[in-house]
Amino acid sequence: MTVDLTNVFQQIDGDYENLKELLREAVAIQSVSGDPSKRDETIRMVHWMKEKLEAIGTACELADLGTQELEGKTVKLPPVLLGTLGTDKNKKTLLVYGHLDVQPAAKSDGWDTEPFELVEKDGKLFGRGSSDDKGPVLCWLHAIRAAQKNNIELPVNVKFCFEGMEESGSVGLPELLEREKDRFLSGVDFVCISDSYWLGTKKPCLTYGLRGICSFFVEVTGIKQDLHSGVFGGVIHEPLQDLMWVMAQLTTVDNRIKIPGLYDQVAPLSAAEEKTYDDIEFDVAEFRDSVGAAHLPTEDKKTLLLRRWREPSLAFHGIEGAFYGPGEKTVIPSKVIGKFSIRIVPDMEPEEVNRRTVEYLNKVWAERGSPNIFKPRPGHSAKPWVVDVNDSNFLAGARAMKRVHGVEPDRIREGCSIPITLTFQELTGKSVLLLPLGAADDMAHSQNEKNNKWNYVEGVKTLLAYIMELGSA
Amino acid sequence: MTVDLTNVFQQIDGDYENLKELLREAVAIQSVSGDPSKRDETIRMVHWMKEKLEAIGTACELADLGTQELEGKTVKLPPVLLGTLGTDKNKKTLLVYGHLDVQPAAKSDGWDTEPFELVEKDGKLFGRGSSDDKGPVLCWLHAIRAAQKNNIELPVNVKFCFEGMEESGSVGLPELLEREKDRFLSGVDFVCISDSYWLGTKKPCLTYGLRGICSFFVEVTGIKQDLHSGVFGGVIHEPLQDLMWVMAQLTTVDNRIKIPGLYDQVAPLSAAEEKTYDDIEFDVAEFRDSVGAAHLPTEDKKTLLLRRWREPSLAFHGIEGAFYGPGEKTVIPSKVIGKFSIRIVPDMEPEEVNRRTVEYLNKVWAERGSPNIFKPRPGHSAKPWVVDVNDSNFLAGARAMKRVHGVEPDRIREGCSIPITLTFQELTGKSVLLLPLGAADDMAHSQNEKNNKWNYVEGVKTLLAYIMELGSA
Repeated sequence: MTVDLTNVFQQIDGDYENLKELLREAVAIQSVSGDPSKRDETIRMVHWMKEKLEAIGTACELADLGTQELEGKTVKLPPVLLGTLGTDKNKKTLLVYGHLDVQPAAKSDGWDTEPFELVEKDGKLFGRGSSDDKGPVLCWLHAIRAAQKNNIELPVNVKFCFEGMEESGSVGLPELLEREKDRFLSGVDFVCISDSYWLGTKKPCLTYGLRGICSFFVEVTGIKQDLHSGVFGGVIHEPLQDLMWVMAQLTTVDNRIKIPGLYDQVAPLSAAEEKTYDDIEFDVAEFRDSVGAAHLPTEDKKTLLLRRWREPSLAFHGIEGAFYGPGEKTVIPSKVIGKFSIRIVPDMEPEEVNRRTVEYLNKVWAERGSPNIFKPRPGHSAKPWVVDVNDSNFLAGARAMKRVHGVEPDRIREGCSIPITLTFQELTGKSVLLLPLGAADDMAHSQNEKNNKWNYVEGVKTLLAYIMELGSA
Repeated sequence: MTVDLTNVFQQIDGDYENLKELLREAVAIQSVSGDPSKRDETIRMVHWMKEKLEAIGTACELADLGTQELEGKTVKLPPVLLGTLGTDKNKKTLLVYGHLDVQPAAKSDGWDTEPFELVEKDGKLFGRGSSDDKGPVLCWLHAIRAAQKNNIELPVNVKFCFEGMEESGSVGLPELLEREKDRFLSGVDFVCISDSYWLGTKKPCLTYGLRGICSFFVEVTGIKQDLHSGVFGGVIHEPLQDLMWVMAQLTTVDNRIKIPGLYDQVAPLSAAEEKTYDDIEFDVAEFRDSVGAAHLPTEDKKTLLLRRWREPSLAFHGIEGAFYGPGEKTVIPSKVIGKFSIRIVPDMEPEEVNRRTVEYLNKVWAERGSPNIFKPRPGHSAKPWVVDVNDSNFLAGARAMKRVHGVEPDRIREGCSIPITLTFQELTGKSVLLLPLGAADDMAHSQNEKNNKWNYVEGVKTLLAYIMELGSA
């Protein structure tokens, strides 16, 4: 039943200049979704991709999302590209998600080359979007083209959902998907997203978990306006002094959370799951150096990965309402809002985390004994996501990677959230696979973003192998 | 020897419309020193005042201060008006300081009237600068005019130093005064500044002390760039968590400083000095309500005034380098700088305060045990200022106030710094008197600034009486 792909893989290697040319075209379109002056380019990118999908026989439609207010202007939202390739009732259906927009970039930010000109150097393809996420999106296109060129019938129907607002909060997409639940999303059996990264640079991996988040605002006030620190200093309970004291009670120096019971909600680590950490390729010293830290709270590989992926963490972000400029300003701020967030993991529930956190803050505040006004409140939250590493979608991905790379991929998690993952899982009720193609050092969102030539070409093979493996999934 | 001023005072009362007209003209000149587009008006104000001083026989010169960079433009600094009225070698010499520039103001800020049109209502003269400091500056002019009109010889020579940059940091003035030490400033026997306020609204006072200041920057870093809190949260020693913890060790909830030995440097309070607090008119409840606080760290009148005026205080101002906008941002800041300042009083020395504070911060940091990089450093500092309430200049001011108001003025201090006070004292080596004319509710720097008609007119009398009293000082 398994189709031999040896010759096709060789053809893909030989087709490199064409693969590169298409990526060059895509990178040249400055689809920066966060920049209203580039909104037309972002829309043009969606149309460009529509043509490419239509050229391989996909029935495409552009779902209109209306407008948004951006920097005081009303601007059109880029439409979402929905494509259907194959409607064979005897086949299962794969839904592929990707995004066509990119982060801002300018040579003056510190790029070595023009960010919107694809430049190949030392086996690396530099350019904004080369890895996040235009490269992976084009890998899907190339994979299907390669199959078609070799008259290989795809064992599944493929649907595409490519948006142009991912880097700007996916405005409008969750609502669209909600509306499409019983139409475009009906009949989907598998979902695959290729918009994340390997843990390192050599060994492929599959991602089976993401952390969720609970954000918090802690407001302290008690004087009706900002006060001169000379005139009033010493005879006022300062809101900012209260706030910093309260926030200082949230964590230990080693970044462990002091809110009672929070760790108790974490799903127990089974011996089997713990064992999977043994084989994961991860260099703690390299990670520490990449961050620039002298020491980390833990430098044990397993403990560190567990803390990043399957334990909650609490980060401080800043304070609203206090002086933030350079230099000095001798004012006592009257109303300050501390911002922090807690990353959550299964089986933590956002409501429970919010409740325990606000309860702890109120308890700490009572200990403070300040007459000021204290208002802790939860902000937005997102649930954690974890998939069964033994489901058929996940195993098809693993077999595909082994076929291309010759090694069993690491099973990893990510510490961050990719909210659309959970949306797809909830609306389709099916397994979502995160199948990363790029290396950890691709510098997504940063200067000198690149995609390795090798990752790009092997990515095409991996996605083709994955589609073929889904035939026996 | 004492000249009877009864008739002159009556004439001053009768001259009210002229006093008001001159203030109207001055307020109409929009001498906002912080606004480069109003720089010409600020310069025009200096020239306007020069004409007025010349009209009473003052020999005037304009000291050029060159230019400054403001909002990216090179703009001319307003000259300093130096005037000399009388050079009688047998008389002592009084130096008067005041400023001709004002804070910004616009009706749209919440003024009830046009800020640059003097409006009289309910015995109040509303207008920007009516109280800070055009009103008091004109009181000097009116006082001398009244003496001249009545052929009363001034018992002292008078020198004037009126600047146009006080609201913008007195750029260039200290350097000018340094250069003028042996010329314009030579032979000065008394200095008087009328640019502060009564403690309340009814009872006059004289100000004999100002607090100094020591500013501090506390920098924490340790990671080389801002990090995504999802990807890195939980495995990093966060600089912002360290900073807030360290700052939380600086004070108690009641705003007392925890730095060892700081209070030990405060000059002991003698029984005689303590007794002066008994008679001071100050309503704690009114003060508390004006601030909008539910409770104050102390609500005992004497303790509260001691804490504002003759004890150090420590205020938090904010953090540079962390997220400060509205909403949420899930970033771990890589380098944060906490800002706080300590108000100091005699006999505290800035060097000693800086040393003890940095030493305490380093000790606390060692207790924290974080591997991050910690750099506490002192910012600018200013010495406290206190004058002998029994010196001849101060006693002349007190007699003048008693002559006009019929009551012994309160002896007060201010919690803030007026750095030019110390500059004059150091360069002349003579006593500087702060002689406030305006009421505590004059709203300097704020919307609806006003000068009470009563304070304005009595102010003219007070300054005349003070000049006359200096004859026997």
